Amino acid sequence: MKPVVVSVTGAAGNIGYALLPRITNGDVFGPDTPVILKLVEIEPALKALEGTAMELYDCAPPLLHDVVCTADLEEGFGDADAVFLVGARPRGPGMERADLLRANGPIFTGQGEAIAKAAKKSVKAVVVGNPANTNCLIAQESAAKHGLGPEAFTAMTRLDHNRATSQLAAKAGARPGVVNNVIIWGNHSPTMVPDTEHATIGCQPAGKVIGDDAWLQGDFRKTVSTRGKAIIDARGKSSAKSAAHAALEHMSLWVRGTPAGNWTSMAVRSDGSYGAPEGIVTSFPCVCSGDGSYEIVQGLETSAWVKEQQQATWDELLKEREAVQDLL
Amino acid sequence: MKPVVVSVTGAAGNIGYALLPRITNGDVFGPDTPVILKLVEIEPALKALEGTAMELYDCAPPLLHDVVCTADLEEGFGDADAVFLVGARPRGPGMERADLLRANGPIFTGQGEAIAKAAKKSVKAVVVGNPANTNCLIAQESAAKHGLGPEAFTAMTRLDHNRATSQLAAKAGARPGVVNNVIIWGNHSPTMVPDTEHATIGCQPAGKVIGDDAWLQGDFRKTVSTRGKAIIDARGKSSAKSAAHAALEHMSLWVRGTPAGNWTSMAVRSDGSYGAPEGIVTSFPCVCSGDGSYEIVQGLETSAWVKEQQQATWDELLKEREAVQDLL
Repeated sequence: MKPVVVSVTGAAGNIGYALLPRITNGDVFGPDTPVILKLVEIEPALKALEGTAMELYDCAPPLLHDVVCTADLEEGFGDADAVFLVGARPRGPGMERADLLRANGPIFTGQGEAIAKAAKKSVKAVVVGNPANTNCLIAQESAAKHGLGPEAFTAMTRLDHNRATSQLAAKAGARPGVVNNVIIWGNHSPTMVPDTEHATIGCQPAGKVIGDDAWLQGDFRKTVSTRGKAIIDARGKSSAKSAAHAALEHMSLWVRGTPAGNWTSMAVRSDGSYGAPEGIVTSFPCVCSGDGSYEIVQGLETSAWVKEQQQATWDELLKEREAVQDLL
Repeated sequence: MKPVVVSVTGAAGNIGYALLPRITNGDVFGPDTPVILKLVEIEPALKALEGTAMELYDCAPPLLHDVVCTADLEEGFGDADAVFLVGARPRGPGMERADLLRANGPIFTGQGEAIAKAAKKSVKAVVVGNPANTNCLIAQESAAKHGLGPEAFTAMTRLDHNRATSQLAAKAGARPGVVNNVIIWGNHSPTMVPDTEHATIGCQPAGKVIGDDAWLQGDFRKTVSTRGKAIIDARGKSSAKSAAHAALEHMSLWVRGTPAGNWTSMAVRSDGSYGAPEGIVTSFPCVCSGDGSYEIVQGLETSAWVKEQQQATWDELLKEREAVQDLL
């Protein structure tokens, strides 16, 4: 079987470290597809990247066809089928969200362009590095100037989706595997809207099983949307394995399809569905057909509470777009 | 399906961090078997363990039935089907190997006893924490005093096996997946013997494909047996994902069986096969039937060079046993 080419930026970091052995284990493209890995890092991290690659090699990954380590974007994205955009400038002391957006802007302009020029036309890129939605928008706009459409770029809200799934399961005393069809709307930020109005727990409506709307709109929502900080408080380090796991699932569902009757949450270019402003990157319930395409699930009814929360997270995304307007 | 109980010691450490999401992903017991995880740590690490467990939960692992975090050994090993003994006292400044053995001895005496008392009679325990072979021997002896036989405890040399496989593949310009049946003999230490005399690369004898005996007995052996240090030099941290990967493979092969015509390397109680001293824990080529039993592969011819190296690594293991004789 012909190898797929998978590129990962920020590959020497903690999320990359958790991600790589699972890509070469077949967790994205299946157990029979060989993989060529292209690991992209900034120059100062190339030495650490070498250690990461050595250890990956020590897993004797049966599917690993070749590894390339590089700081050159066009080499790193060359012929890529799938791209994990993990690397991003982290928030420094005293930086506001707008500063963070502007610090990351040029990174994603450059990556969008390089992906458009060097990757396959069918490439699928997931943005993991924060602020993920607007980083994704910047990459889309940059790639579009070089002939690659915005459908090639999505941003990850699967981690929030998984967190919502787990919190529901815990409250119901059930395994996460029996919880389906939560929705994350909006931005991967505290304004996100974890919506359980269509979720099921063991085939029953989640709201009925939980029987506590105040909890769903209060503590549940707060726990899900501020979970990243809670993890840092408990570990002293930010989420890595759960972020890597979500990124693998996001890409695997996109490539191989969502199960019948199930959707996932993905931040994609808005076409105006559900009244979301067009031209922002915002999370929707999506189904993937398995041929590489995805569709926003249509026709779901939303309560007045969800509509109000959606508006707030969309407004935040409009402001983020405004802050980087000159880069678009 | 009834959940399996999997216990992991040192669960808050870096190997544990890499191991847990893959256990709940079905990488050991398969994609349909629910898992109850029992995470064991020393008291001071329980807070960090909580963070590890939170993040594991954020993966929304469909197979995760329950998680227990504890510093109590009998609770931690209660009803266990499989145990990963990852936690061990690391080597401190100025400690010799004998000091390290004696520092770890009481840990594995206690764990062997607790496993014998609390786990299922069919339990399978793999020792990952170093010095793994002699730690395993200590656990075996302690468990035997409480009615559990030594076949329940093996030590991990699969990481060395994988490293040897990868180095052969790289030299031959092949994918690791086409390299089979290397052997690691002896101790998980620089005296280990990576034996390629029965290995194949794409169904050809490895020695013929490589065509360089001096390399096999020189640089290859040195690279494999000192790889742990090379990883520390490159990463500034010891191997974690590759060790976790090897531990998963070790247990998965033990539980679900080795593929037809293939063996793995496992450190098990010596029955005198190949002239190894009886009653030490040393690595052999082993096949696993899939019913939970393993057998040392018999009747392989070994060259004079391998025999000489085997003797040296067995002598080291005899000395290690002597250093902890009073604990046995």
